[in-house]
Amino acid sequence: MAEKKYVYFFGEGKKEMKKLLGGKGANLSEMTNIGLPVPPGFTITTEVCNLFYELGKRYPEGLQEQIDASLEKLEDKMGLKLGDESDPLLVSVRSGSAFSMPGMMDTVLNLGLNDQTVQGLIDKTGNARFGWDSYRRFIQMFGDVVMGVEHDQFEEAMQAAKDDKGVKFDTDLDAEDLKKLVEDYKKIIRDDAGKDFPQDPREQLQMSVDAVFGSWNNKRAITYRNLHDIPHDLGTAVNVQAMVFGNMGKNSGTGVAFTRNPSTGENKEYGEYLIDAQGEDVVAGIRTPKDITKLKQEMPKIYDELMEVFEKLEQHYKDVQDLEFTIQEGKLYILQTRTGKRTAAAALQIAVDMEKDGLIDKKTAVMRVEPQQLDQLLHKQIDKDAKQDAQLLAKGLPASPGAALGKVVFDADDAVEQAEDGPVILVRTETSPEDIEGMSVAQGILTSRGGMTSHAAVVARGMGKCCVAGCENVKVYADQKFFKADGQKIAEGDWITLDGSTGEVFLGQLEVMDPEISENFELFMDWIQEFSKMGVRTNADTPKDAEAALKFGAEGIGLCRTEHMFFEPDRIKAVRKMIVASNEEERRKALMTILPYQKQDFMEIFKVMEGKPVTIRLLDPPLHEFLPTEDDDIEEISGELGIEAAELKATVKALHELNPMLGHRGCRLPITYPEILEMQAKAILEAALELTRDGIKVIPEIMIPLAGTVQEIKILKDQITEIADELMKKNDIKFEYKVGTMIEIPRACVVADQIATEAEFFSFGTNDLTQLTFGFSRDDVNKFLPAYIEQGILEKDPFATLDIDGVGPLVHMGIQKGKSARKDLKIGICGEHGGDPNSVTFCYKAGMDYVSCSPFRVPVARLAAAQAHITEQS
Amino acid sequence: MAEKKYVYFFGEGKKEMKKLLGGKGANLSEMTNIGLPVPPGFTITTEVCNLFYELGKRYPEGLQEQIDASLEKLEDKMGLKLGDESDPLLVSVRSGSAFSMPGMMDTVLNLGLNDQTVQGLIDKTGNARFGWDSYRRFIQMFGDVVMGVEHDQFEEAMQAAKDDKGVKFDTDLDAEDLKKLVEDYKKIIRDDAGKDFPQDPREQLQMSVDAVFGSWNNKRAITYRNLHDIPHDLGTAVNVQAMVFGNMGKNSGTGVAFTRNPSTGENKEYGEYLIDAQGEDVVAGIRTPKDITKLKQEMPKIYDELMEVFEKLEQHYKDVQDLEFTIQEGKLYILQTRTGKRTAAAALQIAVDMEKDGLIDKKTAVMRVEPQQLDQLLHKQIDKDAKQDAQLLAKGLPASPGAALGKVVFDADDAVEQAEDGPVILVRTETSPEDIEGMSVAQGILTSRGGMTSHAAVVARGMGKCCVAGCENVKVYADQKFFKADGQKIAEGDWITLDGSTGEVFLGQLEVMDPEISENFELFMDWIQEFSKMGVRTNADTPKDAEAALKFGAEGIGLCRTEHMFFEPDRIKAVRKMIVASNEEERRKALMTILPYQKQDFMEIFKVMEGKPVTIRLLDPPLHEFLPTEDDDIEEISGELGIEAAELKATVKALHELNPMLGHRGCRLPITYPEILEMQAKAILEAALELTRDGIKVIPEIMIPLAGTVQEIKILKDQITEIADELMKKNDIKFEYKVGTMIEIPRACVVADQIATEAEFFSFGTNDLTQLTFGFSRDDVNKFLPAYIEQGILEKDPFATLDIDGVGPLVHMGIQKGKSARKDLKIGICGEHGGDPNSVTFCYKAGMDYVSCSPFRVPVARLAAAQAHITEQS
Repeated sequence: MAEKKYVYFFGEGKKEMKKLLGGKGANLSEMTNIGLPVPPGFTITTEVCNLFYELGKRYPEGLQEQIDASLEKLEDKMGLKLGDESDPLLVSVRSGSAFSMPGMMDTVLNLGLNDQTVQGLIDKTGNARFGWDSYRRFIQMFGDVVMGVEHDQFEEAMQAAKDDKGVKFDTDLDAEDLKKLVEDYKKIIRDDAGKDFPQDPREQLQMSVDAVFGSWNNKRAITYRNLHDIPHDLGTAVNVQAMVFGNMGKNSGTGVAFTRNPSTGENKEYGEYLIDAQGEDVVAGIRTPKDITKLKQEMPKIYDELMEVFEKLEQHYKDVQDLEFTIQEGKLYILQTRTGKRTAAAALQIAVDMEKDGLIDKKTAVMRVEPQQLDQLLHKQIDKDAKQDAQLLAKGLPASPGAALGKVVFDADDAVEQAEDGPVILVRTETSPEDIEGMSVAQGILTSRGGMTSHAAVVARGMGKCCVAGCENVKVYADQKFFKADGQKIAEGDWITLDGSTGEVFLGQLEVMDPEISENFELFMDWIQEFSKMGVRTNADTPKDAEAALKFGAEGIGLCRTEHMFFEPDRIKAVRKMIVASNEEERRKALMTILPYQKQDFMEIFKVMEGKPVTIRLLDPPLHEFLPTEDDDIEEISGELGIEAAELKATVKALHELNPMLGHRGCRLPITYPEILEMQAKAILEAALELTRDGIKVIPEIMIPLAGTVQEIKILKDQITEIADELMKKNDIKFEYKVGTMIEIPRACVVADQIATEAEFFSFGTNDLTQLTFGFSRDDVNKFLPAYIEQGILEKDPFATLDIDGVGPLVHMGIQKGKSARKDLKIGICGEHGGDPNSVTFCYKAGMDYVSCSPFRVPVARLAAAQAHITEQS
Repeated sequence: MAEKKYVYFFGEGKKEMKKLLGGKGANLSEMTNIGLPVPPGFTITTEVCNLFYELGKRYPEGLQEQIDASLEKLEDKMGLKLGDESDPLLVSVRSGSAFSMPGMMDTVLNLGLNDQTVQGLIDKTGNARFGWDSYRRFIQMFGDVVMGVEHDQFEEAMQAAKDDKGVKFDTDLDAEDLKKLVEDYKKIIRDDAGKDFPQDPREQLQMSVDAVFGSWNNKRAITYRNLHDIPHDLGTAVNVQAMVFGNMGKNSGTGVAFTRNPSTGENKEYGEYLIDAQGEDVVAGIRTPKDITKLKQEMPKIYDELMEVFEKLEQHYKDVQDLEFTIQEGKLYILQTRTGKRTAAAALQIAVDMEKDGLIDKKTAVMRVEPQQLDQLLHKQIDKDAKQDAQLLAKGLPASPGAALGKVVFDADDAVEQAEDGPVILVRTETSPEDIEGMSVAQGILTSRGGMTSHAAVVARGMGKCCVAGCENVKVYADQKFFKADGQKIAEGDWITLDGSTGEVFLGQLEVMDPEISENFELFMDWIQEFSKMGVRTNADTPKDAEAALKFGAEGIGLCRTEHMFFEPDRIKAVRKMIVASNEEERRKALMTILPYQKQDFMEIFKVMEGKPVTIRLLDPPLHEFLPTEDDDIEEISGELGIEAAELKATVKALHELNPMLGHRGCRLPITYPEILEMQAKAILEAALELTRDGIKVIPEIMIPLAGTVQEIKILKDQITEIADELMKKNDIKFEYKVGTMIEIPRACVVADQIATEAEFFSFGTNDLTQLTFGFSRDDVNKFLPAYIEQGILEKDPFATLDIDGVGPLVHMGIQKGKSARKDLKIGICGEHGGDPNSVTFCYKAGMDYVSCSPFRVPVARLAAAQAHITEQS
């Protein structure tokens, strides 16, 4: 029986084996295969990780032998031996799953050092300081990530050493100091972990491998996977790779780079490097690194070599790469490559450029921009005028574009707690994986340290969240919950505004504006159109909204709410008169004064939409929403209406409901007050008639809200049909119109086959459907929803992303039953979910004809719909 | 090809052919077959009625020929001819569907009379007054029910004739007066209907048949069918029968009788008759008839013959019969028989008596009492002491037992409208089918005219509604909306109380009490037990309720609400302290003062239930329900709690919810405040432990309310299990307990398979499930529900009877999915529907293990469950 292969030497795998080898491992093999200068090493597969958990944290048989054999091969290739006292092999151990995943144990470097081998390293390099610095770094890293010793304790010992000596920088400590520090570090480990730092390199390796597999299921990793919809059973691989050293003097160095600018998309190298440093120095933001372009002067040969690598990588991977490199004594090594995370603007620019260059086709280009990212392009920029008057507190690195305003908080827990009450900005010296939850709820992130590739910057870009990083003029006093900038003290709870595209930090709340649309954007949206199958409409109540949505490619209006029209100052009085009317005649009289306004509204919207379908929802909210509740207002308004305050108060009281969401609203209004429907139907149909007479095409779709029975639709549809028939006959003009309903009550899903015998279209109102399916009031849910998400009861806010497990089956039932009764039933969605990419994908798969969302979400929805289609086709 | 048989001569059918011939026709055939003296005739089938509508109000081919042939046969049998001027055949035309159905055209008598044949009738009988009276009655009836002329106009003409002559009674008019009245009547028809009263008997017959079929779909008939769950596509038959005359002098008469007393069940003839009168005189309540026992003296031979008929009918039909008879010149004819409607007490008595006599078996006896009727036996009797102090306004006939109190209304529309605001009593001179809707919403009915078999009495008994009929001391001024009794004026809106078992009418609101239980009742409940398959539990929060329910045969507690315990005066303070507590420690402290009380409650309930299962629901309502809302109360209570009023007010404000029904309640409370669950779980489990230690068996079932996800159950169940494990271990005692959930959120039905992996039982909370499935707030629904029922959007209040179309499929889904994940999942229902017979039947068919209802509904539920089981078995 052939033995199961658990370990792949670099070059034995390939980039398609991400699931088995993790992204990092697969790419290390791939890079080795295409001839890049990768230090040799091997990958322990993700399968081992899953077996590790299945077997109760034990390893499968045969694994140890395969690791031993691979280690031997590695030793042969390097001509070195692990634990060799005179010339030791040192290795790095890194985790790597199919998805890049902060939150897991990331890296242990310099593994193999101990009290003996450190001397070998020193002898070999002739650099005692390097040797001891490497050793103390290794102990610190190993203690922290493998043995679970608090990071702070090592920092404190380092600080104490510097204080003792009266110096400021780590680099001011000499070999002797560091040697002493090694002893301090070992004591810290002994005291804290209750056992000694292991001297045996094999034991070091074993413990590191254990730690990588163990970190797969730590809380941060689980949170991250939940947040990013990554399955929990993928597992992580472990990569063991020969160390190369960027800290071996002036002709050594290390860097992190993107093949193109991940912020703007510009086709130009982008990144940072440090001379005489190891990789974590760049990422951790402890020393401020140099721009990659400087390398051209400093190390021209290495620079040219690196550019060749960039070219090779992009040609090979057909996408922007994010890579780590090390220069050891004048020789370039590539340690890692992965697809580069990028901003929306960059994603767009890169997709368009690569298509133009023939690197990718249009379909691939369309898949290259995440729908959620488009939002970044379309939302939130600080108004330029507002900036002129505002106090600029500081300027940092433009780490993730967009604008954000919120109240200042200083740690992740506070962010989570206070975000319930309003927007917050998380301000940190630097961020770490512990902060992920806090970052995800914050509007924006401000750090005082770290570069464009620091944790804060990378994560914020991934989240599509505004971030200003490395803002050195900001002094953070997290313990005392304030920061100082521009000579001013900004305390927790104070408002600031960030511009992630410029790196500016302003005091107070500045006006934020929607962005202008770039040429790339228009081109990209044209490409999307080629792959669109499901339509995208907009929710728009005004001609202005409708126009905005048309520009973004909306194919119709999926939801035109009429109640907003009722609130206009010149109409609200008539609406109130209608409500306080004591009989049908008075009610009708008041309604008829609203009729010409409504008709005018509809005519304007129909004109803007130029023959595209317009779905108009009949009055939905309970009538008491149009009346005042405070005594003062009642006094004033009763005067306007010419009735006694007591009378108005009595009406307000009579209309009061304990649970208005479940009350006398939606189609229950026209069932009890048919004259309301009559007015609205006349306004819609007369508007359609007049435009038809003028030769303008109109397709009104009259939508009945909150129906739970077919009888409701039948009664109201009959009334509408009668009005339409009479109008057309009287004017001898014919025009098309449809009568349909919202499906937003669970019962409507259950009896959708009955309802579809009358309704000519369905539009899922998933806001209300979610409320009723869960029994959650959207207005009150924040009393417990944060606890529900925190405790993992719900993965996501079901009002933001459609609950596929619970609400989904009701939507499927509604569609299936509806179509069983009416084959050509047109089906859409008009809840908030219509603009959420995951929900749009659900709608596509469920077979809807269109989704409808707010104008600025239209591009997002269109992209999500196109991607769903492409994914299905492929 | 054999011709389809559309017409059955009496004797060609049999009683099993009710669907085809209607109840009346089938019984007329059956009675003919068993040798009863039935006047000959024939039945046009219900199939013709359905074809009539299918063919657009036309008749199928071949029908006319069959009618002609049957008429010829009838003429032959009677030796008379329709339209014969010297000796005419007269016939009655009656509708008759499978279900007895007031609201349809009922009867046209004396058909065949015209200006010529009336003379023949006079010549033959030598009674001119009889002839003209019969003719004018026929014209009136024909005009009213066939030609749609207002009834009142004939009454007015009659009154005018009496006024002209200065007499008081119809009988004071002589032949000449009546002959003149015939002309007046014919003019009324001509003026009102726009055409002449038809002289051709064949045309009269055709029009009457048309009218019967037409009446199947009039509004009253449709309402009645909706109210009684009768399918609309059954159709009605038409019975054409030779007339016999009860108004041919002193040796003629007519009556309506039951073979046993339909009010008490006593095995004694029961009914009324009038000498020298036609049938409608008895039913319409125009003349007050004599008790049937008087017939023994007045016509001994006829009486004996009638008693033989009674015997024969009961032996044949095995049930109480309600029959109409006519005596024509000393000869008895039976015109109709049907199963006698009866009160609950009578139904029980008759079922028990007939079983004892061997007429029926126990299974049949159990089917003989309608579950809804049992309620009558168990609810509402006026407190005897209360009666002594009350003002007795009048005493009428005890037409339908029970007690009712409400505000007086004087017509059916007012009843419907005002019943929304509170209980009403419908007061009428007499009732008619137009009043059905008003009667159904009224608490009770009071009429000043008509006997025990009057419309009001029959319908009220059918509805199980208290009725006092023929209360002649009550003078009704319906137009002016008051009545006079006992020298007093009682206006619309005044309160009265009726005793339907004694016929008493009291002023004001008297205390009503639950009744004592008869021996029959206990015996009958024992029989039910033999056919019980699905269990019946009770909803009980106190030992007292639990005891009452046990007496009625409850097999456990299906819902013990714990919040009621929180409201007890000595606990509410601690509850409030818990709510205003600013941290977990204070909250826990307050809760622990409640713990001993809750534990005591549970111990008492467990003791009463003697080892039967007790399902305890954890705290369900939102916390703000325990706090005051009015400023005065806040002031006072904050003093009691030792905090500032402003602080309490702030808490009240913080807890306020826009839609509390969808808010922070149910299991959302212990998810956010685990210490609440901890206290309740301890109280339940410690109570169980102590009783177990004392050797008393307890089966607590801890029920988690309002769950929508399996995670909620998992988190709370783990907490409960931990407490239980610790308690059992510490005390070294083991006892059984279960943890389950209410299924009351649509999502819980959809993901029931997930939920059942944790929940050990399901209890459907169909109150909330109905609210959420419909999007109806039970507290607010009366703003539109009456209109919904009136317009036929809903047939019934879905909170009273489970909505099988909409909520039903979700219940089925919950059961099917739940059982798919846990085969032995115990499933019940604890909403109000658990005591509604239709809903109980649904639960039985859905495969539930038990229903749970309020103690006094337990017998109703048990009977409904037994009947569902018997029906399924047969």
